[in-house]
Amino acid sequence: TASFDFNHHSHRRFNPLTNSWVLCSPHRTQRPWQGKEEDDDAANARPSYDPSCYLCPNNTRATEGAIQNPDYKDTFVFENDFPAVRQDQPQLDASTKEAGNPLLQVESVRGKCHVICFSPLHDKTLADMTELEILPVIQAWISTYESLRKTDFINHVQIFENKGAIMGCSNPHPHGQVWSTEDIPQETAQELTNMGAYKEKYHRCMLCDYVKTETATPAPSLSPNGTDHGHGANGFSNGSSYMNESSTHTASAATTASAATTTTIPDGSRIVCENESFLCVVPFWATWPFETLVLSKAHLARLSDMTPEQTKDLANILRRITCRYDNLFKCSFPYSMGVHQAPTNGNKEQEALSHLHLHFYPPLLRSATVKKFLVGFELLGQAQRDLTPEQAAKRLADCSEVHYKVKRT
Amino acid sequence: TASFDFNHHSHRRFNPLTNSWVLCSPHRTQRPWQGKEEDDDAANARPSYDPSCYLCPNNTRATEGAIQNPDYKDTFVFENDFPAVRQDQPQLDASTKEAGNPLLQVESVRGKCHVICFSPLHDKTLADMTELEILPVIQAWISTYESLRKTDFINHVQIFENKGAIMGCSNPHPHGQVWSTEDIPQETAQELTNMGAYKEKYHRCMLCDYVKTETATPAPSLSPNGTDHGHGANGFSNGSSYMNESSTHTASAATTASAATTTTIPDGSRIVCENESFLCVVPFWATWPFETLVLSKAHLARLSDMTPEQTKDLANILRRITCRYDNLFKCSFPYSMGVHQAPTNGNKEQEALSHLHLHFYPPLLRSATVKKFLVGFELLGQAQRDLTPEQAAKRLADCSEVHYKVKRT
Ligand SMILES: O=P(O)(O)O[C@H]1O[C@H](CO)[C@@H](O)[C@H](O)[C@H]1O
Ligand SMILES: O=P(O)(O)O[C@H]1O[C@H](CO)[C@@H](O)[C@H](O)[C@H]1O
Repeated sequence: TASFDFNHHSHRRFNPLTNSWVLCSPHRTQRPWQGKEEDDDAANARPSYDPSCYLCPNNTRATEGAIQNPDYKDTFVFENDFPAVRQDQPQLDASTKEAGNPLLQVESVRGKCHVICFSPLHDKTLADMTELEILPVIQAWISTYESLRKTDFINHVQIFENKGAIMGCSNPHPHGQVWSTEDIPQETAQELTNMGAYKEKYHRCMLCDYVKTETATPAPSLSPNGTDHGHGANGFSNGSSYMNESSTHTASAATTASAATTTTIPDGSRIVCENESFLCVVPFWATWPFETLVLSKAHLARLSDMTPEQTKDLANILRRITCRYDNLFKCSFPYSMGVHQAPTNGNKEQEALSHLHLHFYPPLLRSATVKKFLVGFELLGQAQRDLTPEQAAKRLADCSEVHYKVKRT
Repeated sequence: TASFDFNHHSHRRFNPLTNSWVLCSPHRTQRPWQGKEEDDDAANARPSYDPSCYLCPNNTRATEGAIQNPDYKDTFVFENDFPAVRQDQPQLDASTKEAGNPLLQVESVRGKCHVICFSPLHDKTLADMTELEILPVIQAWISTYESLRKTDFINHVQIFENKGAIMGCSNPHPHGQVWSTEDIPQETAQELTNMGAYKEKYHRCMLCDYVKTETATPAPSLSPNGTDHGHGANGFSNGSSYMNESSTHTASAATTASAATTTTIPDGSRIVCENESFLCVVPFWATWPFETLVLSKAHLARLSDMTPEQTKDLANILRRITCRYDNLFKCSFPYSMGVHQAPTNGNKEQEALSHLHLHFYPPLLRSATVKKFLVGFELLGQAQRDLTPEQAAKRLADCSEVHYKVKRT
């Protein structure tokens, strides 16, 4: 009888950061697509200066005060004119979180929202900026984080970029955002909880282990009878999962588990590119078709803990992954991207758990105009992807690191 | 000093079904939108029969066998020609879930995918079908669920509909899908876990309590010093949350909690419409702008437990909510919708916990062409909405239940 092939047969993979499962249906890439096609942003060439853009240098913003932007030369940081969270709002009488009806729990959220222009040039993106041009962007992230860290009521700083109209970005001028809040947002809270549970069980950092897993040559020994317990990259203990599995999971697992003792793991590398300090992989549990995870190889809590060398290496890896993305479908590749690092609440335990990493969530699946819809089954049931993470990693690893628009002479 | 106003000030609300938080920034509805606008599907009138549609009666499907559809009169159910999960695939040697590297957990997933055409007429939607026409759709859901319930390797049946090109629907012919799997998908597993924790603490069903909370007149007593503990709709016990809160949450709560003892809950009803058997609300914790939750008032485990009266009432509530949706922006309102009910694995505990409900997740925010993007902050940080659930409920409650396209004579 035929054996199980991860490139053809449906399976689900576990995301240890979010403690959730993703369905992978690789044969689905064969189905014809007759649905919605998006506009190709790249088709509309942009000028390097747009007089109507409220982010270009010297232009006037769309606010009440009609503020004028400075004649900035690399990056430019300002507070969002339409912030989702604000510093000044009245106190909520009480947190109802712990009191009253547990089905009507609410908390006040104060915060600040910043916009960071990446470049004065309207037609640039990270993908066609040089590493020297990307460095000031990283410096702006660091100085914004550090100044908010000193702000009393701010406990968490979320740095992110929405790139492309398809990702809700309303202005193509290269820019990102920083939303800082007094709460720890759900995703970070979740990751910290799960990394804490992992550390509790294995006495190691989950993402340090994951870096070792993905870079190990040859693949880590996964024999369930391995004797190397609790030490080094391959010393994963066996038996039960490190999380408290709900009964709903184990009920289902019982139907699929067999008596076989060999462990089957999909073949193929998930590495897209790397340097001394950073690793870029399509994670084993990726949801979006070409999702990547950029991991610091060292256990750093935050961007501001990077050495100058590591900072340069981050600029290097950002240029390379965004360039590969553009080259994949020869378009200005849309994504949401963001930095996960230590909260700014001064909690030492959370700081120790934090491991600097960036997530890229790009929506495209087949081409510049056909995206993956995470809809019905995904919203009601389970995240679902078509091609395998290994297939996606290979496609990205095969892309050039010279931008397709650069004329080679 | 001004007091906290839920219509103007940022706050976050807790979703007890998913155990996660949603940021609500109501003042954000004032910001101008300069971003992407979608096509208005409704602008393209459709014929009632389309010779090129692979779902219309008597037409030929796009499969290898060139199968011809029957001349069906109400609904038509068939197995998906490009299924995400299949019955026949080799066994995976071992579940690696419990063995080997905890960062590379994978399970095989077998299953079946069905398509259910809702009507032979190409230009219909649930929103302009009569209750009598919707009844066969519910019957098709029930018979498909019941036949899969008898299928050995199927443990869960997910019924859903993606409506509109913007929701990844590739054919406007009115239809939904059923994906049945040997695993319990993430969302259902999560809901069951959280409903289980609630029951453990309060000895009541979470959604029975929620129905009571939303229909209570006057609003349930939420005094933290209430003496009515553990009995009836309003007897919520106080003190600690019913979930084991992670330290990341409590760290943040500590910064917002005050000594005040009064509990503030947003004013206003969240009820959109109801009948004897079903309640449709914008849930307190809604993520999507006009998200709704349709709850069975009785504690039913599944659709097939409905009486004939309840079945008619479900058809009634489906017609009314989808019609209101269309009337909101005078368009064929896109959404993903699905039924959550008991798994089919025969687990008695899960069956007892299950409380029949349907989720509607519609993307539109401002008009037929401007949707809400759940992107950067939402993917990296926390779900975020603009208008409050109470404001959304009022907008929907104010809509007519006569479809805007119906000529009034
Ligand atoms: O099966 P369909 O309708 O072709 O596909 C649609 O629904 C599926 C289930 O939600 C999604 O996985 C697809 O991305 C979406 O395009
Ligand atoms: O702030 P922007 O860029 O105008 O808005 C964009 O990013 C926000 C943060 O992810 C989202 O909430 C919005 O839906 C999106 O359109």
